[in-house]
Amino acid sequence: MSAYDPDNIFAKILRGEIPSTRVYEDDETLAFMDIMPRADGHLLVIPKTPCRNVLDASPAQLEAVIRSVQTLAKAAKAAFDADGVTIQQFNEAAGGQEVFHLHFHILPRHEGVALRAPGQMGDMDDIAAHAEKIRAAL
Amino acid sequence: MSAYDPDNIFAKILRGEIPSTRVYEDDETLAFMDIMPRADGHLLVIPKTPCRNVLDASPAQLEAVIRSVQTLAKAAKAAFDADGVTIQQFNEAAGGQEVFHLHFHILPRHEGVALRAPGQMGDMDDIAAHAEKIRAAL
Repeated sequence: MSAYDPDNIFAKILRGEIPSTRVYEDDETLAFMDIMPRADGHLLVIPKTPCRNVLDASPAQLEAVIRSVQTLAKAAKAAFDADGVTIQQFNEAAGGQEVFHLHFHILPRHEGVALRAPGQMGDMDDIAAHAEKIRAAL
Repeated sequence: MSAYDPDNIFAKILRGEIPSTRVYEDDETLAFMDIMPRADGHLLVIPKTPCRNVLDASPAQLEAVIRSVQTLAKAAKAAFDADGVTIQQFNEAAGGQEVFHLHFHILPRHEGVALRAPGQMGDMDDIAAHAEKIRAAL
């Protein structure tokens, strides 16, 4: 496994060097919207401290992140009156990982609605509106 | 969200009422092989105590399970000399959940090898051999 790259885009988001649509933060974690949403409300939860993925995370990082994953999963489900929530977490490129800072995907789901194909940029106004719904549900 | 059903198949596995191919357990969690493996080494991690999914889990359940998820992700990656690991966690039927006891899927991945289609029973001898490899890597 490669070393942590402090110039990955989530590290830049944490440092405020590039913008993100934040929905939640606490001392240890940050949640923000995925800009290529596979479902309305698709968001990401990350630790504020560096680690590449689950394979090198500390117990404290994992515990803080999973607590925030639960908080955001409940809020996103409520915000979109969703029927369910899919959680995905990818480790290394072969595992599906594209940004090498630990993150969990949270995807509100509705019966009969498939996920959109990956890799398609979302509409930023829609994403901002979805973020506001999630914040209101927290 | 419906109440926890104590007759779900993972509850029966925990009680030893139906067989499973166990690879790891501690006081709070159990890991066993998925009988419909989407990749060699596909396994599941569950809490020993009842909860339906991430939406109703306690902090203690989530923390115990994520620690075991990390332990098993590392072991499964090593056992199969995998390039990565995909982790999936489904909440409610619309989220992809089929058994209503909290579980995390751990899928060792290799570059260029897609996941197999869901819902196909694996060969039980292969699954037993894969479990032994994971146990040896723990």
